[in-house]
Amino acid sequence: MARIVMKFGGTSVADLDRIRNVAARVKREVDAGNEVAVVVSAMSGVTNQLVAWCQSLSPLHDAREYDTVVATGEQVTSGLTAIALQEMGVEARSWQGWQIPLRTDGAHGKARIDTVAADDIVARMARGQVAVVAGFQGIAPDNRVATLGRGGSDTSAVALAAALKAERCDIYTDVDGIYTTDPRIVAKARKLGKIAYEEMLELASVGAKVLQTRSVELAMKERVRVQVLSSFDGGNRLGSDLPGTLVVDEDEIVEKEIVAGIAYSRDEAKVTVRRVPDRPGIAAAIFGPLAGAGVNVDMIVQNVSADGTTDMTFTLGRSDLPRAHKTLDDNRAIIGYTELVTDTNVAKISVVGVGMRSHAGVANTMFRTLADKAINIQVISTSEIKVSVLIGADYTELAVRALHTAYGLDAA
Amino acid sequence: MARIVMKFGGTSVADLDRIRNVAARVKREVDAGNEVAVVVSAMSGVTNQLVAWCQSLSPLHDAREYDTVVATGEQVTSGLTAIALQEMGVEARSWQGWQIPLRTDGAHGKARIDTVAADDIVARMARGQVAVVAGFQGIAPDNRVATLGRGGSDTSAVALAAALKAERCDIYTDVDGIYTTDPRIVAKARKLGKIAYEEMLELASVGAKVLQTRSVELAMKERVRVQVLSSFDGGNRLGSDLPGTLVVDEDEIVEKEIVAGIAYSRDEAKVTVRRVPDRPGIAAAIFGPLAGAGVNVDMIVQNVSADGTTDMTFTLGRSDLPRAHKTLDDNRAIIGYTELVTDTNVAKISVVGVGMRSHAGVANTMFRTLADKAINIQVISTSEIKVSVLIGADYTELAVRALHTAYGLDAA
Repeated sequence: MARIVMKFGGTSVADLDRIRNVAARVKREVDAGNEVAVVVSAMSGVTNQLVAWCQSLSPLHDAREYDTVVATGEQVTSGLTAIALQEMGVEARSWQGWQIPLRTDGAHGKARIDTVAADDIVARMARGQVAVVAGFQGIAPDNRVATLGRGGSDTSAVALAAALKAERCDIYTDVDGIYTTDPRIVAKARKLGKIAYEEMLELASVGAKVLQTRSVELAMKERVRVQVLSSFDGGNRLGSDLPGTLVVDEDEIVEKEIVAGIAYSRDEAKVTVRRVPDRPGIAAAIFGPLAGAGVNVDMIVQNVSADGTTDMTFTLGRSDLPRAHKTLDDNRAIIGYTELVTDTNVAKISVVGVGMRSHAGVANTMFRTLADKAINIQVISTSEIKVSVLIGADYTELAVRALHTAYGLDAA
Repeated sequence: MARIVMKFGGTSVADLDRIRNVAARVKREVDAGNEVAVVVSAMSGVTNQLVAWCQSLSPLHDAREYDTVVATGEQVTSGLTAIALQEMGVEARSWQGWQIPLRTDGAHGKARIDTVAADDIVARMARGQVAVVAGFQGIAPDNRVATLGRGGSDTSAVALAAALKAERCDIYTDVDGIYTTDPRIVAKARKLGKIAYEEMLELASVGAKVLQTRSVELAMKERVRVQVLSSFDGGNRLGSDLPGTLVVDEDEIVEKEIVAGIAYSRDEAKVTVRRVPDRPGIAAAIFGPLAGAGVNVDMIVQNVSADGTTDMTFTLGRSDLPRAHKTLDDNRAIIGYTELVTDTNVAKISVVGVGMRSHAGVANTMFRTLADKAINIQVISTSEIKVSVLIGADYTELAVRALHTAYGLDAA
């Protein structure tokens, strides 16, 4: 007997048949004697339609009204799922954010969760009632619906699991777990049984889009054990009890791999600001205006100085490139560079693993492996548990495969 | 300068263009210096879709969850309408039932409004903000969304107008007012400038489906002046300021017509219970079980007794006929009738007018007119301001036209 939270995404509740399947999956857990809370997303496609309506009426629509409109998607699914459960003889009740209440800050459209009142739900779960919570939303201090941003239902589920002191938060998705790398690129990629929060965070931030980054941060902070597993088991049938990947505290992982996984991202762009004066404050002159324009700079490299000038190279999300370019153009006189060189034909490859903390030579293995394949490294950045390099985009698959083998990750 | 409530039905907000039109219509009232609250229905078709989903998942679905699901239709429209108004420079804010709060009783799916808290909305209206209220819903004592039943947005609008002490409640619909009879049958039907609450109630209950009956009852009780007018002025364009029909206290109507209008309904069925024992308690034996089965009986006629037995004839809504038949079959032994005769090929024709109170001969004019056309009257019932007869359905148009002329209602 355990208390668990089960979260189902949009493709898992895409139509009435799938909602029935979700209800059947939930019933299995109830029948096994577990106390269950369910978090549901909108039926797939619904949120996009609602967002499109808001944008069509007003490109700069009011965030409060946007929230009022788009939150209905999850409200519909929560009610329908409760009905499907009741039809199967499972006592169930839907919950909107304002009913729980799940309180957020006032940042409509991308609100953060402050508190989740769990007492009533806990009491009902103890009586055998399943709580079906509309994901992605809460209530802001202005007594209006606030949504958590795209993918926010993952965060709803983790926050609910923390409030309910649940033993586990199961995130049902369209993949069956976290892999050592993208199985579409490396056939020998292995599904991980467990992965540490920090590793999942680094992987999420470098392109493995299984979980919303914020949900992993919250899980780490609140020590919620998260399981990523598949909604589907071939065709449309809901998954059997195949285990997925547990995202847990690293202390729970007995046999730590040095490298847990290899991620890649092609959504990168590289900017080089040529021949800026090599004087104190030049970095602030470049990156201050970029931050002001909301451009998220990732890796930064400053070349050694020659003749009193230097080159500054950095990477950023590709979609931010036009804004970065304009910002630097506008500030050219102040910065004093001679030329701006941009390159979107780049990819970022990252190796991630908490084992790096205690093992030297992880970065060196990466550099040597790429050198053996004649892949040029353009930029390097490191964190405590991650090494990332920027390379030419054409070498992405080659680099990922070679590194997967080099770190001993290939399946037998 | 006035305070008004404007209510728009599903066809008036069927798509984004029409929502923009509604916003433009509201803006005209704001620009004219009025304080405006708007009540909106779901985009047409949306509620039916949501209801169908609930029914498909469970024919006997939980009313609370049904309410959670179907109330989203109006929530979407309220947010979109607020966005459309803001885009036109009109300050606006959407309101769900739980936010106002508009409190109802606990009869989920067909709740009745208890109270409407208006202070916050009134204060905002005074500052120029338009309140866009999601119709059809409120919040029940269990802190869950409760819907008011189909057509409930009319009642929402009247209740809001009463709470706001609004000068008028304008109901925008797909007809441009209340007519002396159905213009599709009588080309010379006239649009009424004013009609009394009692007349509107009688007309609404005998088939003129312009306003939800309950909204008229509430308007009469709270003395809310209701105007029925058209959303459209040819094609898709929103109406100009053509006046509709005002539903008001009869004291406001100076020149009272004896008959205000003629209504008809083909949704009737007639049941005759043959040769029941003519003894005290026989009516209770027949109509008690029917009431218990939720069958709404309308007209009742008992023939004079012959040989100690009598025939009992009554009418009811056609959709209730199978249930009534089964109930009478089940109680045959107790009632002791010999035969059950049913007829669905009937129509009810009603003449309605508060002027009847002070004018004799209204019923006689009806009987004579129908006799002149050789139309047989099967059942008669009367109220203070209404005379209804049941006739063969084939004579519906003939009867309505003849009566329209006989009561001097034909347009010049």
